[in-house]
Amino acid sequence: MAPGPVPLHPDVENALGLPMIHHRTPRFDAILRKVLENLKKVFCTDQPVYILSGTGSAGMEACLVNTLSPGDSVLCIDSGKFGERWAEMCEQFGYQTEILNVTWGEAVNPQEVERILAENPGKFRAVLCQACETSTAVLHPIQELGEIIAKHDQTLFLVDGITAVGAAPLPMDEWNIDGLVAGSQKSFMLPTGLTFVSFSKKAEEYLMTAKSHRFYLDLRKEKAANEKGETFYSSSVTLIRALDRALDVMLENPLEDWLKQIRRRADFTSFATFSLRLDLYSQSPSPSLTAIKVPEQVDGIKWRTRLEEKYNLTVMGGQDQLRGQIIRIGHMGFISDLDLMAMAQALYHSLEDVNIELPIEAQQFWIHNNKWLEMHT
Amino acid sequence: MAPGPVPLHPDVENALGLPMIHHRTPRFDAILRKVLENLKKVFCTDQPVYILSGTGSAGMEACLVNTLSPGDSVLCIDSGKFGERWAEMCEQFGYQTEILNVTWGEAVNPQEVERILAENPGKFRAVLCQACETSTAVLHPIQELGEIIAKHDQTLFLVDGITAVGAAPLPMDEWNIDGLVAGSQKSFMLPTGLTFVSFSKKAEEYLMTAKSHRFYLDLRKEKAANEKGETFYSSSVTLIRALDRALDVMLENPLEDWLKQIRRRADFTSFATFSLRLDLYSQSPSPSLTAIKVPEQVDGIKWRTRLEEKYNLTVMGGQDQLRGQIIRIGHMGFISDLDLMAMAQALYHSLEDVNIELPIEAQQFWIHNNKWLEMHT
Repeated sequence: MAPGPVPLHPDVENALGLPMIHHRTPRFDAILRKVLENLKKVFCTDQPVYILSGTGSAGMEACLVNTLSPGDSVLCIDSGKFGERWAEMCEQFGYQTEILNVTWGEAVNPQEVERILAENPGKFRAVLCQACETSTAVLHPIQELGEIIAKHDQTLFLVDGITAVGAAPLPMDEWNIDGLVAGSQKSFMLPTGLTFVSFSKKAEEYLMTAKSHRFYLDLRKEKAANEKGETFYSSSVTLIRALDRALDVMLENPLEDWLKQIRRRADFTSFATFSLRLDLYSQSPSPSLTAIKVPEQVDGIKWRTRLEEKYNLTVMGGQDQLRGQIIRIGHMGFISDLDLMAMAQALYHSLEDVNIELPIEAQQFWIHNNKWLEMHT
Repeated sequence: MAPGPVPLHPDVENALGLPMIHHRTPRFDAILRKVLENLKKVFCTDQPVYILSGTGSAGMEACLVNTLSPGDSVLCIDSGKFGERWAEMCEQFGYQTEILNVTWGEAVNPQEVERILAENPGKFRAVLCQACETSTAVLHPIQELGEIIAKHDQTLFLVDGITAVGAAPLPMDEWNIDGLVAGSQKSFMLPTGLTFVSFSKKAEEYLMTAKSHRFYLDLRKEKAANEKGETFYSSSVTLIRALDRALDVMLENPLEDWLKQIRRRADFTSFATFSLRLDLYSQSPSPSLTAIKVPEQVDGIKWRTRLEEKYNLTVMGGQDQLRGQIIRIGHMGFISDLDLMAMAQALYHSLEDVNIELPIEAQQFWIHNNKWLEMHT
C-alpha cells in the first residue's frame, strides 16, 4: 500500500504475462488507438494524450522541454520533493526559475500566485505545480490556480498529476490546465514504465517552437506518429496492452465512481488514524495517499520496518526533512476492503507492540473500522 | 521473428505476470544488485552498466548527453536509419556533426575512419557507430574501429549495440568501446521499455563535466543511486525482475554458447535463403537479423503481409529507400528449431503462392533444411 507502485489489478497481471506481439501490426494498432482515446477520458480532455516509455520524471521533463525555451521565466511552486525536482529540471534546462516555497504539509495559497503574476505582468511563461505533492500528501488547489493563470495569455499552467490523475478530480480542459503529466504505476495500476502527457491548445502552440534541446522526449515526433496510428519509438507493447485492460476497469463506470472508491479509501484511512488518536500530516489531504504523523514516542523508521516485516504491509516513510516523521499510505491500485482492514489492524498492533497507549481495545477497533466500511459502500 | 521486439522466454513471461513488489525493499534490492552484476557479464566489462526506463533511443541519447557538450565535434557513421537517428540527435543537442555516409548494405571501411581522424588531429570528441545497423542487417567492424580510435586520446568510441549486445560478440573492454547501448526488447528477450548504457573509464571522465542539458537521462544521479544499491527513479520492477530471469538464461552457460545459438539461426536463415535462390541484402551480415532481397517479380510489401496473415510469421520489411526491397528476419529471442523450420516453410510457400519458380520441391526443401538443423546442433 505504498503510494506507487501499487498493487496490480488481476486483469493487468494477466495481460503482462501474455506472449509478445509486434508493435507494427494491425492487432497492436487497434489496442493503441483504443488506449489513446480512453486516456483522454481519464484526463478529461479533447486534446491528444501522449504515451512515453519512461518514469514519471520523463513525463515531467517532456512537459517542460516541449513548451519552454532556455531563458524563459518560470514560477515553480515548491511544496516538497517533487516540486524541488521540477525546479531542478528547470534550472538544468536553462529557464529563469523563480521558486515559490510552500511550507511542507501545506497547500499553496492561490492568492499568492495571483499576486506574483499581477506584480510581474508578462514575465512568466509558465507556472508549475504538483496536483498532489507525493512527499507530503498535500492536494493543491488546482482549479483555483487554473482560473487565475488562465487570465494571463502568455502563461502556461503545467501540472504534475502523477499521483493525482485518475485518483483525484483533475479535469484538464475544465480547470484550464495547459500541461498535465501522469504515471503508469499510480492510479493506472500498472508497473512503472509509462508516462502520459497532454497539452492544451494554448500549450500546443509552443510545441513546435520551443527551443529546449530534446530528442527522446520530443513530442512533435510522437504527435505525428500518433496521427498515423503509431508510436514513434518501439512501443512498450506489454505495458500498453496492460494499460488497455486497466483503462477498461477504470472506465467501466463513470470516472467519478472510480474516484469515489479512492476517496473512500482515504476517508477510511483518516478514520482509522483518528481512532488511534494519531494525526494527519497534510493540511490539505489528497485522496491518493495519506500521511500519518509518527507519534513522538515512536521511532518512525523502526515503525515502518515493523509494518513491512511483521505485518507484511508496504508503506513509505518520509523523505529528507520528514525522514522518520511520517508514514505514507497509498490509496491507488487494486485494494480491497480486506486490505484496508489489514492495514488498519497492522497500524494498531504495530503501535501496541511498542507499548503505545491506545484509546480502545483491538477488538473494538476492529468492529469500529469494519462498521465504517460497511456504512460507506 | 521480427528483429525486436522478439518472442519472450517462458521464464520471462512468467516473471512479467508476478504481483508487484515495491522498489524500495530488500527483496527488490537483491534482484537489482544481481542484475547489475550480470549485465556487466553480457557487456563484457568491469565498468558499471546503467539501467534506464525508456526505449533504445533513450539509451542512444543518454550515451551522448552524458559525454558530450554543445559545440563538440562528432563523427557519425551513417549506414542506415539508426545512424541517421544518432546524427539527428547530435544536431539537436548542438554538436558539430560530421557524417560519414556508408552505402546502405555495406559496412564502414575502418581505414576511412583512420584517415579522417589522422587528417583532423584532436578534432573529434567522439566517433559514433552502430554495431549492427538494424535497417540494413549490417554488422560493422567494431573491433577494428576500436583499435583505431583508441589511439586518439581525446576521442571516444560510442557504439549503438541495441541489436548486437548479447547477439554478436562485442566485448566492450577488450574492443576499446567507450560508450555502449543495449535495449531490452532484443537479445534480452524482454518487452520494450529498458535500455542499458555503460561507459569506459575514458568516457566516465566526461560524465561529470559534459554540458549537454540533461535531467531524466543524467547518469550521474543513476551512478550515485546504484552505488547505494538503488535506482534514482522509480524502478521498472516488472521489467527488471523479468530481466533477472532472462540474464539467468543467457548466462547459464558461457556467453559464447549463447551467441553461437543466435549465429546458428542466422546461418540457417542464410542456408534457407540460398536454397530458394534468393540473395542476402547485407554485405556484412549480422548474426542478429537477416535481410533478404525481395526478388524482382515479387511485391515486397504484399509478400510481408502474406507472411504475416497467411503464415502467421511476423517479419519486418525495409524502411525508407528499402521499402518493399527487403524483408528482415530476426534471430534474437526465444526461437526454437520448429520456429526456424516454420519460417523457412513460410518463405517457400509464400513464394510458391505467387508462382515464383522455386529450385526444388517443397518436400525436398523441407528435408534439406531439416537436415541442416540436425547437422548443426
